[in-house]
Amino acid sequence: MLSIEEYQNLFLEYLESSLPEKSPKNLYEPARYILKLGGKRIRPILTLISADVFNGKTKNALPAALAIEVFHNFSLVHDDIMDGAPIRRGKKTVHTKWNINTAILSGDVMLIWSYELLQKYPSNISYSLTKIFSKIARKVCEGQQLDMDFPTLKNVSIDDYMEMIENKTAVLIGCALSIGAIISNANDKQISKMYNIGIELGLAFQLQDDYLDVFGDINKLGKQIGGDIIENKKTFLHLYVKANSSQKILEEFNHWVGINPSNPKKKILAVTSIYRSSGAEKAIKDKIEYFSESVILKIDNLGLDSSKKELLHSFTNKLVNRDF
Amino acid sequence: MLSIEEYQNLFLEYLESSLPEKSPKNLYEPARYILKLGGKRIRPILTLISADVFNGKTKNALPAALAIEVFHNFSLVHDDIMDGAPIRRGKKTVHTKWNINTAILSGDVMLIWSYELLQKYPSNISYSLTKIFSKIARKVCEGQQLDMDFPTLKNVSIDDYMEMIENKTAVLIGCALSIGAIISNANDKQISKMYNIGIELGLAFQLQDDYLDVFGDINKLGKQIGGDIIENKKTFLHLYVKANSSQKILEEFNHWVGINPSNPKKKILAVTSIYRSSGAEKAIKDKIEYFSESVILKIDNLGLDSSKKELLHSFTNKLVNRDF
Repeated sequence: MLSIEEYQNLFLEYLESSLPEKSPKNLYEPARYILKLGGKRIRPILTLISADVFNGKTKNALPAALAIEVFHNFSLVHDDIMDGAPIRRGKKTVHTKWNINTAILSGDVMLIWSYELLQKYPSNISYSLTKIFSKIARKVCEGQQLDMDFPTLKNVSIDDYMEMIENKTAVLIGCALSIGAIISNANDKQISKMYNIGIELGLAFQLQDDYLDVFGDINKLGKQIGGDIIENKKTFLHLYVKANSSQKILEEFNHWVGINPSNPKKKILAVTSIYRSSGAEKAIKDKIEYFSESVILKIDNLGLDSSKKELLHSFTNKLVNRDF
Repeated sequence: MLSIEEYQNLFLEYLESSLPEKSPKNLYEPARYILKLGGKRIRPILTLISADVFNGKTKNALPAALAIEVFHNFSLVHDDIMDGAPIRRGKKTVHTKWNINTAILSGDVMLIWSYELLQKYPSNISYSLTKIFSKIARKVCEGQQLDMDFPTLKNVSIDDYMEMIENKTAVLIGCALSIGAIISNANDKQISKMYNIGIELGLAFQLQDDYLDVFGDINKLGKQIGGDIIENKKTFLHLYVKANSSQKILEEFNHWVGINPSNPKKKILAVTSIYRSSGAEKAIKDKIEYFSESVILKIDNLGLDSSKKELLHSFTNKLVNRDF
């Protein structure tokens, strides 16, 4: 087993050597650009760790790890168009730096590229990888569609929200872990255990994202705090208040949701305070804790030797307790 | 072997039974819509015929035929956004009927769906199908990028144009024929022969498209004649005039290219007349003839019995001599 940093460096080296140099320039430059923008590289690292856990050769898992990262970045490029997002990781998004057409087509070729990477394995392995990958890719699209539908829907429940983030975020984390296992010839039960670990890890990860958007530190996070509040995004916190508050709190909450002040400072402060007083903050922390503990239990249940177990534990803690 | 109409009906029946009924509605309705808009269904029919030619069971080729048709429609949905096209097959395009975001995401899920369809085969077949499919899908994106780049490029040669249409159109026809062969366990040489037939058939098909856009009959074609002329599209005809005309003709041609009259009738008439007098019309007809003859020769060279050969001949003639 390597350290997290060593896995990351191994992946980054492989990524760098795999970036397309080909023409047409307008098709491949945006793909290089988004993949070099950085990010935590969580998904590919999970694939490498998972392959190692089942005694695979780490390097053998690199193409599959890259497939997951390329797919993730494809979805970012297209989602950023749909969300009208100008900035990603502190830099211009692809459709802002180039244009929407370029972002659509570069995204398309990245999705195809991710499939090509899965074909670098023997046919039986490749078949299994492609099968789970397609299933997950479809779910990610479904999650994105639900996310786009939410603003126009009247009644979104917390369950709806959990379903949305499971599809949009968690299943790809599950996929990252299971394909590592598949490459290392793990059995079906082990593959499915890794998938389930990934789902709960992904849910905890996304809820932590929601939490940090409100309660995070701008200096550590590197982005504005309260973006979700400004947009009235139907996050866990928002929906918790809607479902669990007294008439008085609800009225105050609805007042702030109903206005769109040019200086949002007061709105952010007021809604943050409601998130505290209504119990939403505690509820999301409890939920994150619940999933993290369940992940740790499931890891313990894999029957691994201690160094492997500890690596998985420490990466889980790093992801779930992060403040950035 | 069936008749062309029987292949088409078989495919349409399978298509109808495979259309996604699932939710989210906003994701799957546009996919149903575009797939039901009609079209000639050339590509899936070619897959079915090719599978039959090598003694496969026709029905066994249906998922792969659908994969090709779904992929083709994915590319139409995304291309129509990029081209700003309001109408497709006489109906609203997806991004016009819904919106750009919906068209992007529905297109994405269709691309994923096309891969899923290829996974309905045993792993070794599925692996081969997926491999050639990815290679071709990437080329289609490259062709679309070249097509988008052409308007801003100063020197586009006829060779550049042929490369563009080979990627954008012909390789998918080649893919349709080769995957039919793969499913029926044809050998590598046979698969590659079918691919090469598809390339030349696709080139002839696209050149016929260019020809009909200028010289076709509005009643048979069901769309306006001269669209390419209005847009100054760098088609074979346009590039032929640029490369092979006297100074006098060139000056007249450049005059018409340089203006954008609100009533384009005169421009269309004048440019059409230049296409005739400059020899461009003859050149494109010769080129179509050249590729069609080459396709027929290659079909004869497959060593098929006469009923199979004749079916391939007649479908080729139907595609290349069509006036619609």
